[in-house]
Amino acid sequence: MKKYVYSFGGGSADGDGKMKDVLGGKGAGLAEMSRAHLPVPPGFTISTEVCNLYFQSGNKVPPEVDQQTSEALGELEQQMGQKLGDAQNPLLVSVRSGAKFSMPGMMDTILNLGLNDQAVQSIERRSGNPRFAQDCYRRFIQMFGNVVLEIEKHDFDQIFDARKKKTGAKFDTDLTAEDLKAIIVDYKKLVEKKTGKPFPQEARQQLAMARDAVFRSWNGKRAITYRRMNQIPDNLGTAVNVQTMVFGNLGDTSATGVGFTRNPSTGEKAFYGEFLVNAQGEDVVAGIRTPQPISELEKAMPQVYGQLREITGNLEKHYRDVQDFEFTVQEGKLYMLQTRNGKRTGPAAVRIAVDMVKEKLITKQEGVLRVDPQQLDQLLHPVLDAEAKKSLKLLATGLPASPGAAVGRVVFTADEAVVQAPKGPVILVRAETVPDDIHGMEVAKGILTSRGGMTSHAAVVARGMGIPCVAGAGELEVNERRKELVVNVNSKKLMLREGDWISLDGSTGEVFAGQARTIDADPSSGVLATFMGWADEFRGKFGVRANADIPRDAKAARRFGAEGIGLCRTEHMFFAEDRIPFMQAMILARDEKTRRKTLAKLLPMQRADFAGLFKEMDGFPVVIRTLDPPLHEFLPKRENLMVDLARLPHADSKTKKEMSQRYGLPVGQLRKELPVLLARVEELHEFNPMLGHRGCRLGVTYPEITEMQARAIFEAAVQVTKKGVKVIPEVMIPLVGGVKELENQKKIVVEVAAEVLEKANMKDLKYMVGTMIEIPRAALTADQVATQADFFSFGTNDLTQTTMGLSRDDYTKFQKDYEKAKIFDNDPFAVLDQEGVGKLIEMAVELGRQARRDLEVGICGEHGGEPSSVQFCYRAGMNYVSCSPYRVPIARLAAAQAVISGDKSEAMRTA
Amino acid sequence: MKKYVYSFGGGSADGDGKMKDVLGGKGAGLAEMSRAHLPVPPGFTISTEVCNLYFQSGNKVPPEVDQQTSEALGELEQQMGQKLGDAQNPLLVSVRSGAKFSMPGMMDTILNLGLNDQAVQSIERRSGNPRFAQDCYRRFIQMFGNVVLEIEKHDFDQIFDARKKKTGAKFDTDLTAEDLKAIIVDYKKLVEKKTGKPFPQEARQQLAMARDAVFRSWNGKRAITYRRMNQIPDNLGTAVNVQTMVFGNLGDTSATGVGFTRNPSTGEKAFYGEFLVNAQGEDVVAGIRTPQPISELEKAMPQVYGQLREITGNLEKHYRDVQDFEFTVQEGKLYMLQTRNGKRTGPAAVRIAVDMVKEKLITKQEGVLRVDPQQLDQLLHPVLDAEAKKSLKLLATGLPASPGAAVGRVVFTADEAVVQAPKGPVILVRAETVPDDIHGMEVAKGILTSRGGMTSHAAVVARGMGIPCVAGAGELEVNERRKELVVNVNSKKLMLREGDWISLDGSTGEVFAGQARTIDADPSSGVLATFMGWADEFRGKFGVRANADIPRDAKAARRFGAEGIGLCRTEHMFFAEDRIPFMQAMILARDEKTRRKTLAKLLPMQRADFAGLFKEMDGFPVVIRTLDPPLHEFLPKRENLMVDLARLPHADSKTKKEMSQRYGLPVGQLRKELPVLLARVEELHEFNPMLGHRGCRLGVTYPEITEMQARAIFEAAVQVTKKGVKVIPEVMIPLVGGVKELENQKKIVVEVAAEVLEKANMKDLKYMVGTMIEIPRAALTADQVATQADFFSFGTNDLTQTTMGLSRDDYTKFQKDYEKAKIFDNDPFAVLDQEGVGKLIEMAVELGRQARRDLEVGICGEHGGEPSSVQFCYRAGMNYVSCSPYRVPIARLAAAQAVISGDKSEAMRTA
Repeated sequence: MKKYVYSFGGGSADGDGKMKDVLGGKGAGLAEMSRAHLPVPPGFTISTEVCNLYFQSGNKVPPEVDQQTSEALGELEQQMGQKLGDAQNPLLVSVRSGAKFSMPGMMDTILNLGLNDQAVQSIERRSGNPRFAQDCYRRFIQMFGNVVLEIEKHDFDQIFDARKKKTGAKFDTDLTAEDLKAIIVDYKKLVEKKTGKPFPQEARQQLAMARDAVFRSWNGKRAITYRRMNQIPDNLGTAVNVQTMVFGNLGDTSATGVGFTRNPSTGEKAFYGEFLVNAQGEDVVAGIRTPQPISELEKAMPQVYGQLREITGNLEKHYRDVQDFEFTVQEGKLYMLQTRNGKRTGPAAVRIAVDMVKEKLITKQEGVLRVDPQQLDQLLHPVLDAEAKKSLKLLATGLPASPGAAVGRVVFTADEAVVQAPKGPVILVRAETVPDDIHGMEVAKGILTSRGGMTSHAAVVARGMGIPCVAGAGELEVNERRKELVVNVNSKKLMLREGDWISLDGSTGEVFAGQARTIDADPSSGVLATFMGWADEFRGKFGVRANADIPRDAKAARRFGAEGIGLCRTEHMFFAEDRIPFMQAMILARDEKTRRKTLAKLLPMQRADFAGLFKEMDGFPVVIRTLDPPLHEFLPKRENLMVDLARLPHADSKTKKEMSQRYGLPVGQLRKELPVLLARVEELHEFNPMLGHRGCRLGVTYPEITEMQARAIFEAAVQVTKKGVKVIPEVMIPLVGGVKELENQKKIVVEVAAEVLEKANMKDLKYMVGTMIEIPRAALTADQVATQADFFSFGTNDLTQTTMGLSRDDYTKFQKDYEKAKIFDNDPFAVLDQEGVGKLIEMAVELGRQARRDLEVGICGEHGGEPSSVQFCYRAGMNYVSCSPYRVPIARLAAAQAVISGDKSEAMRTA
Repeated sequence: MKKYVYSFGGGSADGDGKMKDVLGGKGAGLAEMSRAHLPVPPGFTISTEVCNLYFQSGNKVPPEVDQQTSEALGELEQQMGQKLGDAQNPLLVSVRSGAKFSMPGMMDTILNLGLNDQAVQSIERRSGNPRFAQDCYRRFIQMFGNVVLEIEKHDFDQIFDARKKKTGAKFDTDLTAEDLKAIIVDYKKLVEKKTGKPFPQEARQQLAMARDAVFRSWNGKRAITYRRMNQIPDNLGTAVNVQTMVFGNLGDTSATGVGFTRNPSTGEKAFYGEFLVNAQGEDVVAGIRTPQPISELEKAMPQVYGQLREITGNLEKHYRDVQDFEFTVQEGKLYMLQTRNGKRTGPAAVRIAVDMVKEKLITKQEGVLRVDPQQLDQLLHPVLDAEAKKSLKLLATGLPASPGAAVGRVVFTADEAVVQAPKGPVILVRAETVPDDIHGMEVAKGILTSRGGMTSHAAVVARGMGIPCVAGAGELEVNERRKELVVNVNSKKLMLREGDWISLDGSTGEVFAGQARTIDADPSSGVLATFMGWADEFRGKFGVRANADIPRDAKAARRFGAEGIGLCRTEHMFFAEDRIPFMQAMILARDEKTRRKTLAKLLPMQRADFAGLFKEMDGFPVVIRTLDPPLHEFLPKRENLMVDLARLPHADSKTKKEMSQRYGLPVGQLRKELPVLLARVEELHEFNPMLGHRGCRLGVTYPEITEMQARAIFEAAVQVTKKGVKVIPEVMIPLVGGVKELENQKKIVVEVAAEVLEKANMKDLKYMVGTMIEIPRAALTADQVATQADFFSFGTNDLTQTTMGLSRDDYTKFQKDYEKAKIFDNDPFAVLDQEGVGKLIEMAVELGRQARRDLEVGICGEHGGEPSSVQFCYRAGMNYVSCSPYRVPIARLAAAQAVISGDKSEAMRTA
């Protein structure tokens, strides 16, 4: 018979630490710890496979599972000398989820299972602590009622709070055993009212129900959202861990806590964690009571502390990674409840990787592979400007729960965050966050809570998402219902409302009123520089360039380590307010002669732009794309013109003045000139501009535009070369569908280059002419195209649009429907569609290199900064990737990981 | 040394009839006729290769050519006992172009070359006919002046007409030798004035200049246009034929004529042609004098006639095809000037092919290959309704120069035709057409001339283009300058002006005032039926279906031989005026429930449509595509709504009423409802509708639409099956980009089908679910897609748009620039781009059949009716093509020719 249930504890286990697929991360950790003779409360794990079987068989488990569970339970009862649900000596267990990949707080847990009206009396007798026993029972009914029976938590809270109010209790601990008994009576009534049945007294039935609830929580909304965000497959399933309860709430010699072997926020090598005396685990994680730092445990329970440090230290060496552990002290005895590789922030990941390499715990290669490239984002984004901080009002200082600066408008609910986020940055402010808030946390720029510690829900989730977070800022009074945040600053009451600006520093825990200035990160110093240095060592010749249109961006790109510009969009230079009138005049020109005259005015501007870029990129290549967008993008919108023209006869003088400014026409000429303007706009109007008269097609119609741009490029090159700058221009023709278009445009560029360079006596200046591959036909005929191209650069934004027949601007309208129907694994505009678009890219590289062995190949679409896409580009044989300046380090790391992982395409090997 | 010059004549020739590449068609024919001892005036041919050399060396011929020419000329002079330019016994020659493929009238010809001031006197002496001699010289100066020296024909005409006026001459022949001498003096003055040099007297210089002019005419505007239209490569070049002049204008025992061995208009096996006594060839071809039918020659010159019939009869047998010949009779002696395979109309091509097969002159296969599929178009288009003719005023009856009916508005110039044609059908009316009119003839629906015969320029070109033409309708007075057409009908003067309606019957020569009704051709009877039967024999299993949306089209499709419907666009059923309100209500529905309610109203309409199609296609498959266009196409246009909304506050009651009708809203509700309508239209507005929310994407968002359509299909199938009709439904999901979309939509279709068929107890009704391949990604992942598809149908309209990144609607804006720059060989929306789009198709067929050997594959884009594309589809391994009903016979023939030509792809062989 297939094994579905795995026992552990007492120095041995059926499974081991490698069996995460079967036992989940938690179950595998428990098995491994048991084998290592660590003090683990014994129990058993129901495998992840059962979860899938459960859903496949219509929410039922196969009979074999029940049988094996019963056997494992029997063994456990024998080992503990207790019996589940026994009136005399009842065994209590916890029932917890545990998937292959940790999903903190996303699935359900039930503690104290096995309690019933008899058992509670036995516990009372045996512990000699009636309050403890009643509190356990009270907690169990509440948890079971909420998780398994699906009764609102709020309903239980009402009963509890009513009792507190009635008795005048300030804290939960002020309630007596009698109070708790009364609460239990009311709880049971609530259960009977809501479910139509009494609270289940049969302990094995409780167990089966709890197990099923854990399985169901795998497909809960929260869990699904989390998996989608973290790209965890839906078919892994969760295991269920049934483990003997140990109690951290048996008085002052008991405690419970969580910790990390290193600081998960900064990466500092310091024993790190929190604990609460006389509490159960959920009290720590849920952030209801603010716990003590773990260093206090040394004073409170020195022996336990020593044992804990030794055990966790060994665990880190064993797993060769930071450990995130849970422990409970029951009447002075330490129990390890869980260990796993700890989640960490980007900065922590880099520091830990560098430290562990230096400690020789891992190799340099492993170090480079340990950091998720996406996580670097957190190190590259701005921090609050120290100077600017001084001018802002400091509201409070909470815990530095997730690093980085966040500036935005206050929102008090997750739903509001979702509504407001598209309009501008929001900061989600909550007393404490709960798993149901996850959709709001996902869109917020930062998270602020007034309660909870460094391991509270808000802190853990924010770190996971790389969102700055200040947690447990207790000075703040957060009233979510009235949407107010109140704080006393220098004895003056200050109130922030929804929509007010607030600034957080997640690295210091500071909270400021107002909109703080931020400053850029510096990736060229400190631990990050060391780490990136290693990455670059492995990356070798696989290059990373940046997309940059103006010298300022080019400067940033160099700072982030870009080895050239992979895409300069020349049209961006014309959208500037002082230039667009010249561009418009050019477009409105009715003949070539007038067009050439206006182009002559644009030439010096463009030349200056290019000169600036070349200077910043001294010694590195600069890919300059000729004019790409359709001309109507530079003119007023057609429909606005139509409406204004309809309004004009009845317009008052104010409206006319507005129109006059809008179109740069004197009021008196509106009547005559608006129709002329509209006529030209109509002429240029397109049904599908994406597939219209743009890119090289403009150059074919108006060769004089290409000519002007080529002239600006080469005149700029001559100019800065004379100043001692090394210039490597690569002229890129966009939207080419076949070799003839490239040939047509290349001829213009080469002729202009020859003329300009000859005149300057610089005929040996090396330059390239190549093309963007962004139309399927160009990829399909890449062997022909390559005969005329010095380089290919994949424009994967447009290539994705054309290959998938999917307009990026319109896709958002049905994106949700497609996500719901699970048609795309990822947003194809964020993560390269390797199956479809990728296949075309592979074909094009292969065909291109067949025709021209030394063809330079890169990518300049936004996918060039997305790690999985970067790795694809490497495998496909590209020479470099290019992305936005801030993503350059991410691309560098992804590229290094791609090289370490190895497999390069045939085309690359031969190149 | 390479041979560039080939002599012929006197019973032998350097070349032969197979050397069309080298000698051109005319030169090869002359060589072949010489070898057959036919009476060909001797001469030599300068090869086509020299034409290319001429352009490559900057309009110069290599010295070897001059040398070989000189040698050939020397031999010719010896043979004739005459010398070029000799004062005593001058040799006169003609210099004519002659490319591999005949391009009638497109290139230049010069006659009587060798004449100068001395030679003319010698001719005068030797012929004893001063008028003849002077007329030759006059013609030569005029022709040379126009063609070689590029002086406007008009300038010569002015001198000639002035003399006629001065002397009171009515006809050209009224001018005396003295008159002609005076004209020659003026002509020579004109030449000197225009060129700054006297008219060249050196005969060898004349020859070299004439040769070069012929070469240059290869790259003249007319020739380029003709090649583009007829898809003749630009690099073939023309040969130059230099041939001893013979004179048809030496009095009444001389004549010149042209003819066909069979009627090129009807195909009738009858000796056919025209001649003029005492004339040179150009008089016949240019249509200046209306010639006599060739039967008259029998009376005028019985011996010559007999000899001509015998020679041409033998030529037809020799070449196994209809011969188009030119001859001259010089003082009773017959000379053959040219023979070539004759151009013919579509009806003639079919009839000749069938007759020749029956005469066992050619095989059935050859017969099928002899007809250009495009030519069938002429047999399939409507003819004038005989009944309708009776109610129209017959203006005139001219020559039935090119068959078919044409109805349109009168235009008098080629330029006007080009301007007006996009707005509606035009008929080009000219006194006579000239090669410079070709751009206007190309766009006209029909051509009408008042002068010229069956072989006039208008007639020849119209037949070549397959455009109906009535030529030489002498009753008509065409005044092109005043843009009037005047005719006496029953002694009443009738005038038509530009823009008036006119109707032609090119098969009878009738011309009617007004807009005649037309009736459809019947392809299922007569010679065409025989011919198509043979085509179908060879075509075998390679199927032809039709694109048809409504039963009427389906009926026509069957009549034209379609074996099923390859594409039914279901949305066309909703654009009908009585249905669109239901469609709009469905789109405006804000929730699924309301949407389902409105869909329920559309269901019976759609069901009835499908039932009608199934009935017409009894026993044949019907491919039904689910809803494809974006929903906004069914709503009013956004910009119109915006403008109307801006106008509404100031609108008068008439305007409001118009708006009320436009939007189907009561006047009183416009203010409230227009903004609501606009809001929904805004919501649905797309930047690139082609790449937007359409096709299966609609079905993913609104599964209830797919569900309703599937229900309509299967309920209709059940309904007509019960009536004994054999139904083969193939449900096609559009715009699929990958297997998951197909899976999603297929599930809906299969579930509805199961439900409907089960209820009707018809579970064994066979149907297919497949997909349109119209997005590159679907083609690239066709192996996956095929796992869910019973069939593929290539939607090459959209596949061309996406693969080339080219919007069909916007392409027209720069199409001319692309043609000028020679970027596309053909319009990719008319002729399949085999290199790019075709490559994707081949990949998709191969991948699809890998996954599913029995995958049915077809094409339903408009390329499915274009012969070269049909042949590609066969080679790519498709099972069928589908096209518009009228193109079905064209596709059937193209398919047959593809099968006969043979090469099938691997994928097809394994299928």
